[in-house]
Amino acid sequence: MSAIASAHAAPLVAPRVVALVGVSDGAGKLSGRPFHFCRQHGFTGQIYIVNPRRDTVLGETAYPSVVAIPVPVDHAYLLVGTGLVEAALDDCIAAGVKVVTVLADGFAEAGAEGRARQARLVAKANAAGIMLIGPNSMGVVNSGTGFVCTTNAAFKTNGLLPGRLAVLSHSGSLIGTLLSRGTVRNIGFSHFVSLGNEAQTCVGTVGLTLVDNPDIDGFVLFLETMRNSTAFARFAVAARRLGKPVVAYVLGKSREGQALSVSHTGALTGEAAAVGAFLRHHHIAEVSQLDALFEAPALLLQKPRLVDRPRVATVLTTTGGGGAMLVDQLSLRGVALAGLGPDSAEFFRQNDIPFGSGKLVDVTLAGAQYDVMKAAITQLITDATTGLLVVAIGSSAQFNPELAVKPIIDAVAENPGAAPVAAFPLPHAPESMAMLQAAGIPAFGGVESAADTIALFLADDMGPDDMGYEEPERMAPDVAQKIAALIAAHSSGAVLDEVDAGDIFTGLGIGAPPAVLVADKGQKADDLDRVLDAAVVAYPVVAKLISPDLPHKTEYGAVTLNIMTGDGLETAIATMRTHVARLAPHAQIDGVLIQPMITGLGEALVGFRRDNLVGPVVTVGAGGVMAEIYRDVAIRPAPVSVQTARQMLDEVKGFALLRGYRGRPVGDLDALARLVALVSQLAAFDAIAEAEINPVLVQADGVVRLDALIRLGDENGAPHG
Amino acid sequence: MSAIASAHAAPLVAPRVVALVGVSDGAGKLSGRPFHFCRQHGFTGQIYIVNPRRDTVLGETAYPSVVAIPVPVDHAYLLVGTGLVEAALDDCIAAGVKVVTVLADGFAEAGAEGRARQARLVAKANAAGIMLIGPNSMGVVNSGTGFVCTTNAAFKTNGLLPGRLAVLSHSGSLIGTLLSRGTVRNIGFSHFVSLGNEAQTCVGTVGLTLVDNPDIDGFVLFLETMRNSTAFARFAVAARRLGKPVVAYVLGKSREGQALSVSHTGALTGEAAAVGAFLRHHHIAEVSQLDALFEAPALLLQKPRLVDRPRVATVLTTTGGGGAMLVDQLSLRGVALAGLGPDSAEFFRQNDIPFGSGKLVDVTLAGAQYDVMKAAITQLITDATTGLLVVAIGSSAQFNPELAVKPIIDAVAENPGAAPVAAFPLPHAPESMAMLQAAGIPAFGGVESAADTIALFLADDMGPDDMGYEEPERMAPDVAQKIAALIAAHSSGAVLDEVDAGDIFTGLGIGAPPAVLVADKGQKADDLDRVLDAAVVAYPVVAKLISPDLPHKTEYGAVTLNIMTGDGLETAIATMRTHVARLAPHAQIDGVLIQPMITGLGEALVGFRRDNLVGPVVTVGAGGVMAEIYRDVAIRPAPVSVQTARQMLDEVKGFALLRGYRGRPVGDLDALARLVALVSQLAAFDAIAEAEINPVLVQADGVVRLDALIRLGDENGAPHG
Repeated sequence: MSAIASAHAAPLVAPRVVALVGVSDGAGKLSGRPFHFCRQHGFTGQIYIVNPRRDTVLGETAYPSVVAIPVPVDHAYLLVGTGLVEAALDDCIAAGVKVVTVLADGFAEAGAEGRARQARLVAKANAAGIMLIGPNSMGVVNSGTGFVCTTNAAFKTNGLLPGRLAVLSHSGSLIGTLLSRGTVRNIGFSHFVSLGNEAQTCVGTVGLTLVDNPDIDGFVLFLETMRNSTAFARFAVAARRLGKPVVAYVLGKSREGQALSVSHTGALTGEAAAVGAFLRHHHIAEVSQLDALFEAPALLLQKPRLVDRPRVATVLTTTGGGGAMLVDQLSLRGVALAGLGPDSAEFFRQNDIPFGSGKLVDVTLAGAQYDVMKAAITQLITDATTGLLVVAIGSSAQFNPELAVKPIIDAVAENPGAAPVAAFPLPHAPESMAMLQAAGIPAFGGVESAADTIALFLADDMGPDDMGYEEPERMAPDVAQKIAALIAAHSSGAVLDEVDAGDIFTGLGIGAPPAVLVADKGQKADDLDRVLDAAVVAYPVVAKLISPDLPHKTEYGAVTLNIMTGDGLETAIATMRTHVARLAPHAQIDGVLIQPMITGLGEALVGFRRDNLVGPVVTVGAGGVMAEIYRDVAIRPAPVSVQTARQMLDEVKGFALLRGYRGRPVGDLDALARLVALVSQLAAFDAIAEAEINPVLVQADGVVRLDALIRLGDENGAPHG
Repeated sequence: MSAIASAHAAPLVAPRVVALVGVSDGAGKLSGRPFHFCRQHGFTGQIYIVNPRRDTVLGETAYPSVVAIPVPVDHAYLLVGTGLVEAALDDCIAAGVKVVTVLADGFAEAGAEGRARQARLVAKANAAGIMLIGPNSMGVVNSGTGFVCTTNAAFKTNGLLPGRLAVLSHSGSLIGTLLSRGTVRNIGFSHFVSLGNEAQTCVGTVGLTLVDNPDIDGFVLFLETMRNSTAFARFAVAARRLGKPVVAYVLGKSREGQALSVSHTGALTGEAAAVGAFLRHHHIAEVSQLDALFEAPALLLQKPRLVDRPRVATVLTTTGGGGAMLVDQLSLRGVALAGLGPDSAEFFRQNDIPFGSGKLVDVTLAGAQYDVMKAAITQLITDATTGLLVVAIGSSAQFNPELAVKPIIDAVAENPGAAPVAAFPLPHAPESMAMLQAAGIPAFGGVESAADTIALFLADDMGPDDMGYEEPERMAPDVAQKIAALIAAHSSGAVLDEVDAGDIFTGLGIGAPPAVLVADKGQKADDLDRVLDAAVVAYPVVAKLISPDLPHKTEYGAVTLNIMTGDGLETAIATMRTHVARLAPHAQIDGVLIQPMITGLGEALVGFRRDNLVGPVVTVGAGGVMAEIYRDVAIRPAPVSVQTARQMLDEVKGFALLRGYRGRPVGDLDALARLVALVSQLAAFDAIAEAEINPVLVQADGVVRLDALIRLGDENGAPHG
């Protein structure tokens, strides 16, 4: 953790002196809420109210400025209107405040003027070494100290449960939603931070500030965008190192959702799939059910219990239909289900415990007896073939918690180090839920939330630091130098054609078939034959017009396949010129590229680009139109190792055709994986905004690059500001 | 409704005299529950306990038999063990009982012996005109009369809410789950029927029995299988005619779920996609979130308000993040979202109500005022451009129902006939939910359930009787006769080859290119040329070996494309014979089919089959491997109209290539739709179990059948028992 983050940790969530700036009188006023909530929830620090137009506000002394407060202020919450924020920040700077949270809107989300206003705010805060939360922030809450410094009305609640999960949310209103919904489930939160526009701090930096807080076991994120993927990644790595799970719900999976995010908070848009891949890569558990946000962490905290256990779920139930529903939902999410292993089957038989048939262990009414249920659970969690045990409980959970959940709690307590257990009561069963919660046993209120979370829990981990996966290869320094030189030869924003882009790919180690570039001077068949002979390129050949203005050559009729003779080649070149003259009259033609015609078993397309939100990503898809029509593409943050690239290929359905589908010959997917890993190395060159090889020809032995395209970014070389 | 169903309606759910057969003494006994629950919930009918081994049970007189009961019994619940069920049924028959419900398991789900036992039960009940519920049934409940005749422990609840939704469930335990979860949401149910094995009655027949019950507004189905699709369809039609929505949750969407269904209840398996298509076709709202089962009906009951309104949703919110989450989830499910129409925008501006930008109408804190919120809602629901108005309510729903939901309730009450309204409080807000519930305004506890239901509510209706869709064409009687004769020429179970199957397709009106069938006698090139000349078939040609033993010719090397000469043809035939001799040595070869080589713009595959669960279905997919690898197939109950077939083609992504994708030529999808509709007519011939045309060649003008395959069913001609 950085020194800065460390220095701000206490004033952010555990300040001793707080200034509330811009509080006005009046019972229902929004600006009065932080004061009332801090009092209501027993905040023991000092609170000073700043209001230059009054002597007292809410019965308290009102100070004319932050500077006028007689003691050093740790944390100020600016509740003033947009136009007064800058002056208030100046006041805080003069007073030496360490953390400033800003409520007002009207900044980056409000046009050019708002953006300029926000930039000034950030510049001032940075210069003063102040940590700035917001603007557009509903505040910061520490449930443990009663520092409930928020304008969110939900904190009026009397039952602010203690908890060990920190909520970081772009949306201010959602912190109230999570508080309310968590409370019903007896799940409390240690902290809430409403991040708003993330002008200076973001999820990543605030997460880093809090990550080693001993009161926090895990993080709950409600994300509308991703403003600083580098900081986010550092936070994710730190959380993982400390064994603190991070669960995220991400808005903007749909087009309309993305549009709202832009208009609402001035965020950029990225590709939902890229964000998902980025989160998975960083071991963030992305949930699709809102309630899983607070239900998932308890189970994810059990991950150490899964070490050396198979990644399978065994569902034990007293209620056939309910258990079957859970099995169905788990199976739909790709979870492997295990019935009874041989030892456990023997145990059940010897003890006359029914267990049904197939993948659901249904003890039926026998499960209504404490001893039977406890014996069954003990057996299952101490069986080495069990991965996760999930207990689906019927009506007894509602009326007889002592029968429904006591055996689970006791079996788990008596067998430390046994397999992890999760519970799903079918009925509404608050008493059972509270008992499970108190015993630290993960429990779920809905079958969908349970299945979502269990799928995440059992998924194989991905990423470089886990499961023995290899790091992406390091590029040799001479290779990197050579490529940097090739890039430097072009101006920023340039689109490199097949020849120039091809040189870069060749430099990376991705070769292409022999080729000869002929200056197009209306050569006749004989001349062309001589050139090909000299270059040892034999018919049949393919000919392409080379031009920086024709990134998609085929659409301009600038590619001719399967040319058999010199006459044919002469005609083909003339015809292509005619096409281009008609379709793109101003295109500059650099020459004609002639290559031998090569066939393979299938095609792939491999791409690299910098996503607005999550930075460099590499993609691979089946060639032809399948990638586009079926969105049959795998994506990862770049660079990737060859092993990760191999996993990507497994995700692409269309490559079934290259895996020996219905007796077809098998393509060299290992070579394709190596190529994907090499392309992903382009991430090292900030100047490269986008690159594509379409198609890569996959053969039985090896792969061949049949095209190349690279686009350079703007002068910064980093389009992701 | 049939007379039988009508005659059993009262004894099924409103009996005056009930016999509980096999009740034993003892506090916790399962068999005592129906008696206790009926007493607890104030059942005013007469209850008689039958137990031949005691004089009194549970303090009541015990009768030795049903026959011994002094008054006629309407409904008997057999609580005896498996081995005693048949005798107890005989007793009921002798006593003239009208409805018999059976608790015991050990029937169809328990091997050959169980199946035989179940068959005997059904035969006896049928002969006696008795309606049989179960076996494996947890009973029947009528909340209105206190007839709580169930063994499900959940009914111990004190708060059995009144309600107007009937639950029909294959799973007995799920009726308790629905009771419990519905109660928390203040949603009650009028009836519960646990259907178990559906030996005699099924969802469809019980549904038909209850459909015109004036106490029932809609139906909630929990389905593990579908045993009688014909009865189900009749029930669905009746419910629709009466404007009673039917909502279903279907188990067995996954492989493991299906396997459980088979082992659990002895059900057949079908294809999940076929079941989904069947339900949609019959206007059943299939939900994927369990809670939507009881939350959806209230909204679906508002469907009449949608007449003449656009199928769009407008989301109004006081809480940006929460509203954005709902918009995102709706958009993901394909719901069209509308912002403010011009009139409403003008109204909001004139009244200084903020509304944000884009597709979310965000009134922000202004929505905390009753008058503002009521005015905004009134404006929106009386605006003709509004479809459904969805209000996403923030923290105020939790603490200030009078501000959060009162304006909604009042605006709706004062504007009958205005647009429908649904509400989604972000926090846990039981008081607001209860007020909305009481006012008849659909409300949702989860964003996923809300989005699921709204998508179903706004979806265009499908099916023959709605939205002006055309009925499938009727086959001309002479066509039907001709096809029946062609079928009759083959024995049951036969697989018809391309020639014989082709005759049937030709009879239906689906022609193929000119073709000549040559008896394979080792003819030389010259002989073959003469045959082709005579048949006016010119080179290039395609040649195929014809055999009933080679349904997938290409896998046996029995097809050769693009033959240019007589010599080539002679060689091709010899080569194909060699392949088949090696790969399928016992295949009987009927000859060689020779057709001109035809090219088109793309391929489709069209299939017909009888699904185990839902009966005849027609499918269409993109040709080649895409249908299989991407499951890119549309499916409907057969027969379909040409218009429905056209909708099916719209669902197949791969046909993008035939819709003018990236400047490609457009294929004749109208002709393909006509072909699909014709193939679907095969549903009329019970003898046809399965049929396929793979491929259909799609050209710019017309389609061509390039193959044909038909499999006949067993002797019944109806593989779906």
